[in-house]
Amino acid sequence: MPTITSVDVIDVRFPTSATLDGSDAMNPDGDYSAAYVVLGTDGDLEGYGLTFTIGRGNDLCVAAARQIGARLTGRDVDELAADLGGLYREIMADSQMRWLGPEKGVVHLSAAAVLNAAWDLAARRAGKPLWRFVADMTPEELVAACDFRYLSDALTPEEAVEMLARLAPTREERVAELARDGYPAYTTTPGWLGYSDDKLRRLCREAIADGWTHIKLKVGANIDDDIRRLGIAREEIGERTLMIDANQVWDVPEAIEWVNRLAPYAPLWIEEPTSPDDILGHAAIRKAIAPTGVATGEHAHNRVMFKQLLQAGAIDYCQIDSCRLASVNEIVPVMLMAAKFGVPVCPHAGGVGLCELVQHMSVVDYVCVSGTLEGRVLEYVDHLHEHFTDPVRIERGRYRLPGLPGYSAQMHPESIAAYRYPDGHEWAG
Amino acid sequence: MPTITSVDVIDVRFPTSATLDGSDAMNPDGDYSAAYVVLGTDGDLEGYGLTFTIGRGNDLCVAAARQIGARLTGRDVDELAADLGGLYREIMADSQMRWLGPEKGVVHLSAAAVLNAAWDLAARRAGKPLWRFVADMTPEELVAACDFRYLSDALTPEEAVEMLARLAPTREERVAELARDGYPAYTTTPGWLGYSDDKLRRLCREAIADGWTHIKLKVGANIDDDIRRLGIAREEIGERTLMIDANQVWDVPEAIEWVNRLAPYAPLWIEEPTSPDDILGHAAIRKAIAPTGVATGEHAHNRVMFKQLLQAGAIDYCQIDSCRLASVNEIVPVMLMAAKFGVPVCPHAGGVGLCELVQHMSVVDYVCVSGTLEGRVLEYVDHLHEHFTDPVRIERGRYRLPGLPGYSAQMHPESIAAYRYPDGHEWAG
Repeated sequence: MPTITSVDVIDVRFPTSATLDGSDAMNPDGDYSAAYVVLGTDGDLEGYGLTFTIGRGNDLCVAAARQIGARLTGRDVDELAADLGGLYREIMADSQMRWLGPEKGVVHLSAAAVLNAAWDLAARRAGKPLWRFVADMTPEELVAACDFRYLSDALTPEEAVEMLARLAPTREERVAELARDGYPAYTTTPGWLGYSDDKLRRLCREAIADGWTHIKLKVGANIDDDIRRLGIAREEIGERTLMIDANQVWDVPEAIEWVNRLAPYAPLWIEEPTSPDDILGHAAIRKAIAPTGVATGEHAHNRVMFKQLLQAGAIDYCQIDSCRLASVNEIVPVMLMAAKFGVPVCPHAGGVGLCELVQHMSVVDYVCVSGTLEGRVLEYVDHLHEHFTDPVRIERGRYRLPGLPGYSAQMHPESIAAYRYPDGHEWAG
Repeated sequence: MPTITSVDVIDVRFPTSATLDGSDAMNPDGDYSAAYVVLGTDGDLEGYGLTFTIGRGNDLCVAAARQIGARLTGRDVDELAADLGGLYREIMADSQMRWLGPEKGVVHLSAAAVLNAAWDLAARRAGKPLWRFVADMTPEELVAACDFRYLSDALTPEEAVEMLARLAPTREERVAELARDGYPAYTTTPGWLGYSDDKLRRLCREAIADGWTHIKLKVGANIDDDIRRLGIAREEIGERTLMIDANQVWDVPEAIEWVNRLAPYAPLWIEEPTSPDDILGHAAIRKAIAPTGVATGEHAHNRVMFKQLLQAGAIDYCQIDSCRLASVNEIVPVMLMAAKFGVPVCPHAGGVGLCELVQHMSVVDYVCVSGTLEGRVLEYVDHLHEHFTDPVRIERGRYRLPGLPGYSAQMHPESIAAYRYPDGHEWAG
């Protein structure tokens, strides 16, 4: 019966702006960062979680996660692991903190960090990878861990149990398939906006050589540049699949015009064409640019936004993020709604640790929630994995099934010592 | 040519939870708080602004406002006052901070505090109340100060100039009318959920005696209590107008059922029936409960949400908040859209300083934007005004036109000394 004895939250930042890794039309110079949570116990067991930011303000998430996490000190790990839905509801019920969102912004990002650590701790306690910990829950147990508040006009807990129960008998078949074949993915590594044409071309070639069949490019700063860059990418990748991502830079009419000018390059989807809050705007864009699809979600701040994106027919691809939604408790309901509405879940990843975390959610989607890989591709970006103790493993454009216990968010102590802000030696120097 | 020499942000909290002032179905025990910004200059001039929270986490807004406000140090006040749109865009363009929202939660609340102080400073420098400072701007100047990003599918800057220009020649007539008659208001003072039936009855009687014609009650915790309390209110107020407010507690189907059960008490509107993010949910509720109206907005986190509430036909009353939207720069576009869609703006107030600030915006709505008082009532709550140097003045259920320079957000030094958190003597004791 281990007990949580400490909740540490550390500000870790990587100076990615120096190399323009991660540069896009809205975010030209992010320093990929994490508010990194460590739950200590009176035994050897620890739990690790994080939320992802791009630099300034990471300290706000650290401060919020400390406040939210404080309640975990003294808790029995087994009781916590047996009622992760209760912990979620307790955190969300703090009405004074709720006022600052509600369920959005710094407070929600920080709740994600704390809850990610709690799920990691529970999975480690069980000796299972997070996806397996979830896949071993009964439909009723999983639904009890989820937040269905404000969703009942789209999906009730009872429907969710039925959906999960239909797939439960065949879960192990899909696990075996993933263990054999991996989970399909795409790469954003070649396409950052700050990269030169030569670097774009070289990275496209390398991606193809590495077995990638789907590649994503950043667009939206300059239409002529976009046309030239898409031309280069198409030359290199041939008939393989190309996606584009505008990172919210356009108004609705501008998005329609711009994307239609890029249609000759046959992108599968345009990602974040406008404000992530603009559900009706995404729906209008989707109508006007078909057959190019619309993808969004990395900044959709909670399950209520996803509910409406689905209800409004606003998206072709549902891009959950493992650090913006408040952990498994909120992600699973979104995946259930996406399955009900027939929209594939293609998670956002990249940043710091997002690939490590969200791969577990894609496995849960296939094994427990949707039962299909049709239209699914999970984002991959080749940055910063070396800082994690259990980094993602990619083979020929597919994620290998994670095998170690936990949610894969643990960082190396050396990385934390180097990049903690502002006193790590990479920053203090 | 005064220069800004300091940006101080103070954590001020009032222990309102002790008396259940402000208690509702979602927020049973708020401690009304402000992240209070003081812009100091090398002269006598100062600028005051705030954002409002209900307790825990106010420190997060203080920390964020310090980061956002830091850029103001060293600025020339006259240059700042001449380009408040530029300041707004500069703050919003910080992509690292933007990631934490975008344009929502702690960062946006804190941007509001800083920008409120900048507008206050500009108005004081001009020797004018904030509403007069705005009413003396030409349509082109006011539109240049506003944020129209993501709005062009609903309202373009050019349309906005036209709308403002149509009413510009008659602005002074409406100012004269408000100076004579005041601005229509309603009171929420009697209706907090934590108050006993006797207190509710007594406060309704007092409100009528004071000339109020519109009274709002909190609902949503227990249907039988609601029926009993609405019965008491109706007994006391007769044919006067009654509004109800659920503070987001219901799912969509529950909201419809609950509100229809309260229909016999003929509420003018149900406020915040469900998640503030649920645009489509509000639209569904509105259809199902007519003729009871739907009001929301105090938690609508930015102009994009208001745009959609209007586009979707989701609201009968548009409840802007002067501390959740990012100051005049974002409020005026929302008021313009509301005018275009024919929806009356009935601001949210109460809390700490919200009445003081938002009264200026209702004056701007009438004088510059909509030109009508039809369907308009501005919220009033009788709490904490004594802490302000230029408190609102209410006469017979109407706000009197503010007359002193600035945005009315300055607090008494004694109040700050007493209630600053955690070291003020009201907290340290």
